[in-house]
Amino acid sequence: MAEKFVSERNLRFLLYEVFDITSLLQYPYYAEHTPEVFDMILETALKIGRDMLYPHLEEMDKTPPEFVDGKVKVHPVVRIFMKECGQGGWISAMAPMEIGGQQLPNMIGLVPGFIFGAANYSASVYPGLTTGAAHLINSFGKKELIETYVPKMFAGEWQGTMALTEPQAGSSLADITTSAEPTDQGYYKIKGQKIFISASEHDGVENVIQLLLAKIKGSPPGLKGISLFVVPNKRINENGELVPNDVNVTGIYHKLGYKGCPINQLSLGENDDCRGYLVGQPNKGLAYMFQMMNEARIGVGIGATAIASAAYYAALEYAKERPQGRRLTSKDPTLPQISIIEHADVKRMLLFQRAIIEGSLSLLLQCSKYSDLEIVLEGEEKEKYSLLLDLLTPVAKSYPSEMGILSVSQALQCLGGYGYCDEFPLEQYYRDVRIHPIHEGTTGIHGLTLLGRGIIRKNGKAFQLYLENVQEVIRRAENDPELKPYGLELKDALKRLQEVTSHLIDVATKEGPDLFLADATLYLEFFGIIAIAWQWLLQALSVQKALKNKDGLSEADANFYQGKMYAFRYFFGYELPKIEGLAKRLTNGDGLTVEMKADLFSD
Amino acid sequence: MAEKFVSERNLRFLLYEVFDITSLLQYPYYAEHTPEVFDMILETALKIGRDMLYPHLEEMDKTPPEFVDGKVKVHPVVRIFMKECGQGGWISAMAPMEIGGQQLPNMIGLVPGFIFGAANYSASVYPGLTTGAAHLINSFGKKELIETYVPKMFAGEWQGTMALTEPQAGSSLADITTSAEPTDQGYYKIKGQKIFISASEHDGVENVIQLLLAKIKGSPPGLKGISLFVVPNKRINENGELVPNDVNVTGIYHKLGYKGCPINQLSLGENDDCRGYLVGQPNKGLAYMFQMMNEARIGVGIGATAIASAAYYAALEYAKERPQGRRLTSKDPTLPQISIIEHADVKRMLLFQRAIIEGSLSLLLQCSKYSDLEIVLEGEEKEKYSLLLDLLTPVAKSYPSEMGILSVSQALQCLGGYGYCDEFPLEQYYRDVRIHPIHEGTTGIHGLTLLGRGIIRKNGKAFQLYLENVQEVIRRAENDPELKPYGLELKDALKRLQEVTSHLIDVATKEGPDLFLADATLYLEFFGIIAIAWQWLLQALSVQKALKNKDGLSEADANFYQGKMYAFRYFFGYELPKIEGLAKRLTNGDGLTVEMKADLFSD
Repeated sequence: MAEKFVSERNLRFLLYEVFDITSLLQYPYYAEHTPEVFDMILETALKIGRDMLYPHLEEMDKTPPEFVDGKVKVHPVVRIFMKECGQGGWISAMAPMEIGGQQLPNMIGLVPGFIFGAANYSASVYPGLTTGAAHLINSFGKKELIETYVPKMFAGEWQGTMALTEPQAGSSLADITTSAEPTDQGYYKIKGQKIFISASEHDGVENVIQLLLAKIKGSPPGLKGISLFVVPNKRINENGELVPNDVNVTGIYHKLGYKGCPINQLSLGENDDCRGYLVGQPNKGLAYMFQMMNEARIGVGIGATAIASAAYYAALEYAKERPQGRRLTSKDPTLPQISIIEHADVKRMLLFQRAIIEGSLSLLLQCSKYSDLEIVLEGEEKEKYSLLLDLLTPVAKSYPSEMGILSVSQALQCLGGYGYCDEFPLEQYYRDVRIHPIHEGTTGIHGLTLLGRGIIRKNGKAFQLYLENVQEVIRRAENDPELKPYGLELKDALKRLQEVTSHLIDVATKEGPDLFLADATLYLEFFGIIAIAWQWLLQALSVQKALKNKDGLSEADANFYQGKMYAFRYFFGYELPKIEGLAKRLTNGDGLTVEMKADLFSD
Repeated sequence: MAEKFVSERNLRFLLYEVFDITSLLQYPYYAEHTPEVFDMILETALKIGRDMLYPHLEEMDKTPPEFVDGKVKVHPVVRIFMKECGQGGWISAMAPMEIGGQQLPNMIGLVPGFIFGAANYSASVYPGLTTGAAHLINSFGKKELIETYVPKMFAGEWQGTMALTEPQAGSSLADITTSAEPTDQGYYKIKGQKIFISASEHDGVENVIQLLLAKIKGSPPGLKGISLFVVPNKRINENGELVPNDVNVTGIYHKLGYKGCPINQLSLGENDDCRGYLVGQPNKGLAYMFQMMNEARIGVGIGATAIASAAYYAALEYAKERPQGRRLTSKDPTLPQISIIEHADVKRMLLFQRAIIEGSLSLLLQCSKYSDLEIVLEGEEKEKYSLLLDLLTPVAKSYPSEMGILSVSQALQCLGGYGYCDEFPLEQYYRDVRIHPIHEGTTGIHGLTLLGRGIIRKNGKAFQLYLENVQEVIRRAENDPELKPYGLELKDALKRLQEVTSHLIDVATKEGPDLFLADATLYLEFFGIIAIAWQWLLQALSVQKALKNKDGLSEADANFYQGKMYAFRYFFGYELPKIEGLAKRLTNGDGLTVEMKADLFSD
C-alpha cells in the first residue's frame, strides 16, 4: 500500500488560498468557528482515514458483505467507523446547531468525505448517506419525525439511505409503483419492491432508515404523484422498543467493485405491516428528494475524485521506486536503469491524473462554496448561488466520475503488469471507481439535466451567472503577465461555449427537443472541460500570488507551487484542446442518433 | 448471457466484400483453397465458440487456475479445446504445408482467433500463443528442433509461450539476466527467473515449450546480446520419455481479469539442470522474437476487439429488451415505457461501440492482408507490404486495446446498475479487456515504436506508402457522390497527419529525441483515429457498391448495409473530430513533460 492517498497540502491550498474559507467566518451563521477548527477537522479526518479506514481497504473488497438468513453482515470496521462518525460529529457537521449539528461550512464538510473516500470509498458511503438522509428529514419533516430519527442518525446508530429505484423504474422515476396507503393512525402502509439500495440493511448499525419514494393510492400518475416517506427497517413500538417493520432484504448484488458496502433488494410490506411516515406534503416527494439527490451527486463527484487521488499516489510511489529503462539520449545498457518517473510518458500519465483530480476537487469546493453562501445570503444573492449550484451539480458529479475512470486507468497503466494484479491496489480502485457514472443518475441523465434544464432554466439566468463568474477569473488572469496567455485561451473556450450553446438553443427552437438533446452527453463533457479549465486558472492565480513572495517559501512549498503550475499547464495544453473536436460535433449535429431505427442494429 | 457475441454477417462483409479474400486464390501458395473452405472455417469456428467456449466464460472467471504443489490446474475445457485446436487444424492453419500446416491466409486465420476471443478470451490465448511459438521455431529453428516441437504444438498436445519478462526487465528487455551456458552436448544450461508468463505451465497439455530470451555467457551487453531458446518444461530423455527440465513455477498472479489463463512466475535451472536449445544464431534472439511479438500484437488487437464485440452484443440485447422512460416529445406517464434502444443517447453509445469494433476489425484484416501478400510477393512489392505491416502493427495493437476499454465501458453503461453486477457478463468483459494496453508492449512503448521507428524508418518510406494507400481510398470515395464529403474530410485529416508528422520530424532534427518523442502516445492516438477513418471509408465504399443493387437485397442485408452507413457516419461525425485537439497539442509541444522534475510531484 502506498503511504499517501490524499494531499493534505493541496487541501489546504484549495481551502485557504483558492477559496478563502475563512472569509465565511464573517457571517454570523459560521461565526463560532475558527481556522483552528478547520485545521483540526482536516487533521482528525486524515488520522481516521489513515488509521481506521485505509488498513481495511483491501479486506473489505476481498470479503464483501454476506447475506445469510435475511441478514446482511458487513465488515466489523463499519460499526466502529459509524460510531466514530457519530461521536466525532462527522455526520452532523453541516447541520444547523438547533438540531444538534455544528453548522460547519460545506467546504470543510467536503474534506472528511474526500479523505474517507480516498482511504476506503465503500466505508465512506455509510456516514455519507446517513448525513444526506438526516438533512432531508430535517428540511422537510415534521418536528416529531426529526426528533425521532435525526439524533439517532447523527449519532451513527441508525443508518440513512435513499430508496428510489424499482425493478421497472431506474432512470425513469415516473414509473415507481411502491404504494402507500393512508391509515388513521398517522402512518401509511407501504408495499412494494426497491432495488439497488446502498446500505439498506446491515449489522453495522442498530437500525436503517429508508428515505423512500412511493405513491399514495389515488395520487396522479408519473412524477407528480410521488411522495416521500421515512420507512425504518425497525419501528419503535408503544414500549419504545425497536420491532421489525416488515422491510425484508430479498437479495444482495454481487458487484464489480465498491464491494465493502452492500447494495440490496428490498421487499416492503410482504406481511402488510410496513409503516411509512410521510415527509412534508403528499405528492411533493420528488422535489424534496432532489435535495438529497443533489447532495449525493456532489458526494459522488467527491468519491470519484477521492478514489482517483488514492490511485494517483499509489502510481506515484511506484513510479518513483521502479527502475526501468534509460533516457532516450543515453541507451548504454551498462548504465543503471532510471526510475520510470524520469520518462516523459510516465510524467504525462501522472500529470493527467493530477490535472483531473486537482481540477475536479477545485470544482467540487467551488460548488460547496456556492452552497455555503446560499445558506447565509438573502434575496438575489441567495438565488444567484442557488442557481449556480444547480447548474454545476451535474458537471461536478459527471466530470469526476467519467474522468476518474480514465485517471485510475492511467494510474494502473503506470504499474504495467503489476497494475493488473491484486498485489497492488490499482485493480481495486479501477473496479471501485466504475460505479460513479452509474449511481445517482447516469451520465446520460446528467447531460439532459444540464442542457435540457440547467442551461435554459429561467431564460438562461444560471448560465449567464456562470459566464460572469468565469469571465471574472479571466479578467484577473489577464492582469498577470504569466497567466495572460491562459486567460486568453479560456476566453476563446468560453466563446466556443457560448457559440455552441446558442447553436443548440437554436436547434431546440427550430427542431424540437429530440435534436436539441441528442448529444447532451457530449455537451456535458464539453462544458465540463471548460469548467475545469476555469478552476485551474483560478488555482493558478493563487499560485502566482504565493510565488510573488518566492524567497519566503520553504522548499516543499516551492515544489508544491511549481508542481501545480505544471499540472495547470498540462490541463491547458492537453485537456482543454479536446473542446475543439466536441465543438465541431456539437455544431454539426445531423440527428444521426435520432433518426437511426433500432432494427439497423441487428447485425 | 446474450445469444450473440460476434456478427457473422460483418465478418463475411469484411472478408469477401471489403478485402476480397478470394483474390488471394490467384497465388499458387493459396491456390488449393476455395471460398467454401473459408466458409467452413467461419462456421466451424462459430460453432466451437458458441458450444465449447462461450458456456464456460463465466465459470473460468469465477474459478481461476489454482497453483498447488508446484502444479497449475486450469479449467477442464482447456484440455478439450486444445485437443480440438490440434485435431481441427486451428493451430497449424497458417503454417506452410511442408511442415504440416494448411497454408491458409492470415485473413481467414484471424477469424477463429476473433470468434474464440469473443466467446472466451482467456481460452483463446492457449492456442493463440502456441501458434505464434510454433511459427517462431519454424522460421528460425534447425530442422531437428522443428521436427521435435512443432508437430506436438500443432497437435495441441504441447503449449507454446513467449518468455521475455524478468523482475528487473519488463519494457526494458536490454536488462534481462537469464543466462545460457553452452555445453558440449548441443544444449545450453539455462538459469534465471521469468515473470508474467502466460500459460507457462498448466495441466491442459502434456508439456509447455517456452520460447525464451536469455543471454549466452560472454555476450555483449544490452539488446545485442540476447539469444532465443526453446526451453521445454519437460524434455525428452534418451528413451524418448518426457522428464522434468528444471523449470519451476514459483508463483501465479491474481489478476483483475483474463482469469481463465494462468500467468506465472518461473524459476529456471534452480538445480542446474534446465536445458535450452538455441534457435538460430547467438545474439540474434530479439530480432527473431519480434516475429512472434508482432504476431502477438496483432493477436492482442484481435482479442481486444473480440471482447468489445461480445460486450456490444450483450449491451444491444439488453437495450432492445429493457423498457425505461419515454420519448422526449411524449412524456405522458400513463403510456407504456419504450425500450432504451429508442433513446438517442443509448443509440449513440451503441454506435460508438460499433464504430470502434468494426473499424478496428477492419484495420486488423487490412494488416492480415498485408501479411498474406508479403508471403506471396517478391522484391519491391514484398518489401512494400512488409513495411506497411510493420508501420501499422503498433496501431493495430493499441487502437483496439485503448478504445476497446472505452467501448466495453460504454456497453456496461448501457445496462446501468446491472452492468456493474455479475449477473450480466459486462463487468467481466470490463475486467478482461483492461489487460490489452499492458501486455505485448504497453501503449507508451507502441507510441515510441510508431513515431520513433516506424515513421522515420528508411527515410519515411513506410509512411509514404501508407499515405498512398489512404489516398487511393480517398480518390475512390471522391468518385461517389454520397461518399465525396467524407473523402474530403479524410483528405483534410491526412493533411493534418502530414503536417503534424513534418512538424515532429522538425522537432527531432532541431531538439533531439526527448522533445520529439515526448507526446508519442498522443501521436499514436492521433494516427490511429485517422487510420480507422480510412478503414471506415473503405467499408463505406463496399456498402455503396452493395446498395447500388438495392432491389436484390434481402431485408436483413438492407438493414445491415444501412446500419453500417450509420456506424460509418458516426465515426466521421463523432470520432474523427478528436484529431483536432490532438493536432493542436502535437504542434504546440512545449516540453512540459520533459522539463518537469520528479521532485515536483511530491505533493
